[in-house]
Amino acid sequence: MSTYDFDIRSPAAVRRAIRDGRYRGFTSGLAPDHVQGNLMIVPRAHADDFERYCQRNPRALPVLGRSRPGEPRVSELAADMDLRTDVGGYTVFRDGEPVATPVSIADLWRDDLVAFVLGCSFSFEAVLQRAGVRLRHLDEGTVSAMYVTGLQTEAAGPFAGPLVVSMRALRAADAIRAITVSQHYPMFHGEPVHLGAPELIGIADLSAPYGGHGLTTLMPDELPVFWACGATAQLAARAARLPLCITHHKAHMVVTDVPVTDLPHRSDTGIRT
Amino acid sequence: MSTYDFDIRSPAAVRRAIRDGRYRGFTSGLAPDHVQGNLMIVPRAHADDFERYCQRNPRALPVLGRSRPGEPRVSELAADMDLRTDVGGYTVFRDGEPVATPVSIADLWRDDLVAFVLGCSFSFEAVLQRAGVRLRHLDEGTVSAMYVTGLQTEAAGPFAGPLVVSMRALRAADAIRAITVSQHYPMFHGEPVHLGAPELIGIADLSAPYGGHGLTTLMPDELPVFWACGATAQLAARAARLPLCITHHKAHMVVTDVPVTDLPHRSDTGIRT
Repeated sequence: MSTYDFDIRSPAAVRRAIRDGRYRGFTSGLAPDHVQGNLMIVPRAHADDFERYCQRNPRALPVLGRSRPGEPRVSELAADMDLRTDVGGYTVFRDGEPVATPVSIADLWRDDLVAFVLGCSFSFEAVLQRAGVRLRHLDEGTVSAMYVTGLQTEAAGPFAGPLVVSMRALRAADAIRAITVSQHYPMFHGEPVHLGAPELIGIADLSAPYGGHGLTTLMPDELPVFWACGATAQLAARAARLPLCITHHKAHMVVTDVPVTDLPHRSDTGIRT
Repeated sequence: MSTYDFDIRSPAAVRRAIRDGRYRGFTSGLAPDHVQGNLMIVPRAHADDFERYCQRNPRALPVLGRSRPGEPRVSELAADMDLRTDVGGYTVFRDGEPVATPVSIADLWRDDLVAFVLGCSFSFEAVLQRAGVRLRHLDEGTVSAMYVTGLQTEAAGPFAGPLVVSMRALRAADAIRAITVSQHYPMFHGEPVHLGAPELIGIADLSAPYGGHGLTTLMPDELPVFWACGATAQLAARAARLPLCITHHKAHMVVTDVPVTDLPHRSDTGIRT
């Protein structure tokens, strides 16, 4: 983990390394004091419906920012941001089907595209670790796994579908602490939506995560703890069969300059000292 | 539940009914807006050690009040309180062994006795219910079960021993909400110490609770959630083999005039509206 040729704590350095093609890994663990987000780019004709969908499902889809049509940046999240090149991987969907996973979308950019950046649980992982919570998936160099649940989101326009969750394998004391801490960060999905038996929220098989990656195993003293996940937007956009929709690919997130501590959060960390 | 001949919401009325022998049931659910506490009476010679023991184990033993030697009341908890008669049942221990469970200790009172009132999870059950958490043990007319764990408290003087916990059977969403709510009430044991597999904290058999009473069964969609419990003091006092020690008996608690909302609590309820 010491072979980076850039300052991994600096969000601007991370974005530059990605933009220049020097870094192609996941963004989990990078610039840990700064907010990372999910990317969702839709044509202007669908942008208002999509924003309404997010507002109706704030646990999964907290909106950190929205671009003006045709502008590939959300300036309040980072002045030098270029969403066409600063994300390590993109998935391009046409009529709801994935057609490409490029590392740049400069050639696809259009004047009518609107980008949304949505809160992501990566941002609270650093907070959890500072609170003493062990995140085994990070120790093992992977990410949290995602699952499609049997819980339904509230629809808006053409956007609807199941809630997607991220799962972290936590020991009980860490699960309790993670709940007390994460509830104070509504912009990063807040407290979990479920813990324990996966089948109670319609997850039949922990070993088959959405997207196929992430830590899916449990140690005997661990519980699976499930948070609402921004990937919910991807499923909704696919179901809506938008002519074009572009998202971040896997765990390549939007790295912003916003300090985690600057986001709206509840005043009390709930951490015993 | 409508056959009480007193105002069950009034702590003074509850105390009077107990004092007059008109009520002999458990105090759970009575005067729900007011704080209830565990009672622990020890000889003056051991009072400072006991208070230190509480301070070292604040999750289990949050001190709500301490009487002056020989005074059977903690005036700041209720002006008319008489701890010799206002608790529905007492257990008298001599040299660590239970010798009697009277309904009054007026004849046992001595000038050197010091009473402690310790925070109790009954007080946050009303708060949990207001937050929408279903407490099945209350629906079924019983109390939460207690268990002796394999976790050790921090000793002080002759006081030492295992942590005792109370268990509530909760569905996952209720467990999460109960954690986010209870963390804000450190005087009522704060957030849980464990949830899920009982054997991880040394509880071999959920069907064999400490004291023999309370809800011990789990529905298929419920998790056992464990909070530190004031009964920890009873075990420590027994192990210390005090010549005399008097506690409340089972779920007959000290009913105070202190509104639940007046106790120190963290400012944010964590409840989504």
